[in-house]
Amino acid sequence: MVIVIDVMGGDNSPEETVKGAYQASLEYDARFVLVGDKDQIENVAKRNSIKLDRFEIVHTPTVIEMSDSPMAVVRAKSDSSMNIGLTMLSEGKADAFVTTGNTGALFTGATLIVRKIKGVQRAAIATVLPLSKPTLVLDAGANIQVDVESLEQFAIMGSAYMKQYYGIASPTVGLLNNGVEDTKGTELRIEANKRLSALDGINYVGNVEGNSVVLGACDVVVTDGFTGNIMLKSIEGMGKMLSGSLNELFRSSPVSVLAYLLVKGKFKKFKKKFDSREHGGAPLLGISKPVIKAHGSSDAVAFKNAIGQAIFFAEHNINEGISENMSVYTAKRKAERAAKKAEQVTV
Amino acid sequence: MVIVIDVMGGDNSPEETVKGAYQASLEYDARFVLVGDKDQIENVAKRNSIKLDRFEIVHTPTVIEMSDSPMAVVRAKSDSSMNIGLTMLSEGKADAFVTTGNTGALFTGATLIVRKIKGVQRAAIATVLPLSKPTLVLDAGANIQVDVESLEQFAIMGSAYMKQYYGIASPTVGLLNNGVEDTKGTELRIEANKRLSALDGINYVGNVEGNSVVLGACDVVVTDGFTGNIMLKSIEGMGKMLSGSLNELFRSSPVSVLAYLLVKGKFKKFKKKFDSREHGGAPLLGISKPVIKAHGSSDAVAFKNAIGQAIFFAEHNINEGISENMSVYTAKRKAERAAKKAEQVTV
Repeated sequence: MVIVIDVMGGDNSPEETVKGAYQASLEYDARFVLVGDKDQIENVAKRNSIKLDRFEIVHTPTVIEMSDSPMAVVRAKSDSSMNIGLTMLSEGKADAFVTTGNTGALFTGATLIVRKIKGVQRAAIATVLPLSKPTLVLDAGANIQVDVESLEQFAIMGSAYMKQYYGIASPTVGLLNNGVEDTKGTELRIEANKRLSALDGINYVGNVEGNSVVLGACDVVVTDGFTGNIMLKSIEGMGKMLSGSLNELFRSSPVSVLAYLLVKGKFKKFKKKFDSREHGGAPLLGISKPVIKAHGSSDAVAFKNAIGQAIFFAEHNINEGISENMSVYTAKRKAERAAKKAEQVTV
Repeated sequence: MVIVIDVMGGDNSPEETVKGAYQASLEYDARFVLVGDKDQIENVAKRNSIKLDRFEIVHTPTVIEMSDSPMAVVRAKSDSSMNIGLTMLSEGKADAFVTTGNTGALFTGATLIVRKIKGVQRAAIATVLPLSKPTLVLDAGANIQVDVESLEQFAIMGSAYMKQYYGIASPTVGLLNNGVEDTKGTELRIEANKRLSALDGINYVGNVEGNSVVLGACDVVVTDGFTGNIMLKSIEGMGKMLSGSLNELFRSSPVSVLAYLLVKGKFKKFKKKFDSREHGGAPLLGISKPVIKAHGSSDAVAFKNAIGQAIFFAEHNINEGISENMSVYTAKRKAERAAKKAEQVTV
C-alpha cells in the first residue's frame, strides 16, 4: 500500500501536513510518498525532530494556491505538488492520494489526470457531517449546479461508500430540499425526487430538510455542491461556535470551573463527536482511484485522520462497489433510452 | 394598536396560539382580534381558564392546511382564518397580522390581499437566526429562485429592519455564497456580489459562508429562499440537537447531575440564546403592513413573542423606513435605465 501525500497548498502547509504524515507513518502499515518543496519539508522535519528516512520525498517546484484557477493544476502549474501526486496515482505508482489543497483544482486535476469511473457523469466531493451519526453529503462544493442524472449517480456512489466504509447494510438516502412534500423545491428537485423514488438498489427516504439531516434522517444526503456547501459550513460553524460558548460558560466562575472538572471527560468526548477534524477528509467519489481532500485548515491530527481514511478506502476496494453499481445504472439507463426511442419510432 | 391573530393552521393550533394570544394580552398594551373556529377557541379557553372577554373573536369556517396550495388562500378558501385576517389588515381594521399557518399561502395572501410596498419586486420572509447576535436572513423560504434585483432589494429591506428593530446604526450585509472570493458561486451570485458592492446606502461586506454567518460575519444575510431555508434549518437543527446532547450528558450520572446543578442558571441562559422560540416570528418584508409568520410548531411562548414582535414592528413604523429606502433605490434604477437607453440611442 503506497499513499502519495501532497504536503503543500493548505493553510498550515507544510508544517501540519508533514507532522500529520509522520503521525500516520507511526500508526498505519503503509509506505508514504511526500510531494512538495524539499527544503521546506526538511525544515519542518528538523524543527519537529521528524525522521524523514521513513518517507520517499518527491521535490516539486510549484504549489497550487487557494486563489489559483481550477485549470492551473493541468496548465500553468503542471509541475505542482498536486499535479505530480495525482500523476503518480494515475500511473499506478500509488494506491491513494491525499491533499489539503485547492478544492476546485483537485476536482479538475482528479477528473482530468486520474479520470472518472466508467459511466460517472460528474465526480462529487463527499463529506461526512460532524454529527453523532456519520452522515455523508454529496456534493459538498465541487458542482455548483447539477442535473437530475448526477443526483441519481450521487445517490448510488454515496450508498456504496457508506455501505463499505461504515458497514451500513442498506444506507438511507435523502434529497436535500426546503420541505418534505413532493411539490417542494425547484423543478429540478421535484423531478429528482420522483426519479430517486423509482431508482433500484437505493433505500430512498424522500426529501429531507436541514434540521432533519442534523437529527439523523438519513445516511446519505444528495444535493448540488452549492447548497451542500452551505449546509456543511452552517453545521460546522454551529458546532464550533457552540463548543466555544460552552468553554466560556465553564470558565466564567470558580463554581463553573468545578462543574467543568466534574464532567471534563464526558465533555471532551462530546466535543470530539462534533469536531470535523475527527472525521478525516472528503473522498472524491466517482474518481477511478482513491482521492481524499482534507480540510484546508487541517492540523496534524485532522491530516493524519484523512490519510487513515485514504488507506481504508484503498484497502476496502470501495471503488469496485461504486463501479459495479454504476454499470448496473448505466445499463438500465441505456435500455430506457433505447425503449423510448423504439416507442417513438413505433408511434 | 390592534393586532389580528390567525389562531388556526399551525401544528399546535388553536391550543398554543390561543394560549400565546392570552399571554400576549397580559403582557402588551394592545387590542387583539382572534380569527378562527369559534367553538375550538372557546374549548381551548375553557380547558385553560382563559377569559375570552378581553378578545374580539371573528369566526371563520375554513382553515388553510399545511398541504394546501398557496393560491387556496385567495381562491378555494377565501373564507379561511388567514384570508379574513389579512383582509382586516388590508382594510385598516388592524395594524398587524400574526399567524403560524402555511408559509406559501401566507406569502401569496399577503402579496395579493395586503399588497407590496411600492417598488418592491418580491416580498421576502426574513428570519432572525438563533445565534448569540441577531442575524437576519432573507429570503428564508418564500422565493425559491430570485434575480439580482430582488437580492439588492432584500439588502435594502433587511438593513432598514435591523436598523429600526435592533437599533444597529449601519447594519452589515453579506451575500450567502460557497466561498468569499468574487469568482465564487453561480453566475447570479457573481453578478449580485458585484451589484451589491456598488449599492449606495448599504454596508456591504461581500460574500459570506455558512460558518462565518454563524460566527457573526454580518447583520443581514441575503440569499434565495431555497438556500436560506437550508441554512436556517441546519442551524436550528444543530442548536436543538446539541442542546439535547448536553441535557443527556448532564443526566448521565450523579456526578454529572451535580455539575449541572452548579451551572444550571448559566446553562439555561445558554440554551435560551440558541432557542429559536425566543426570537419571535419572521416578518414578511416588502408587504405594506406588518405581517409576522410564527414557526409552524410554535408553542404559547413562541407565539406570544411573535405577537410582541408584530406590535413592535407596527409601533416603530418600520415599513416607513423600508418605503423611503425603496423609493431612493427605484428612482436610482430608473435613472440608470434612462441613461442606458439614452446611451444606446446616441450610439
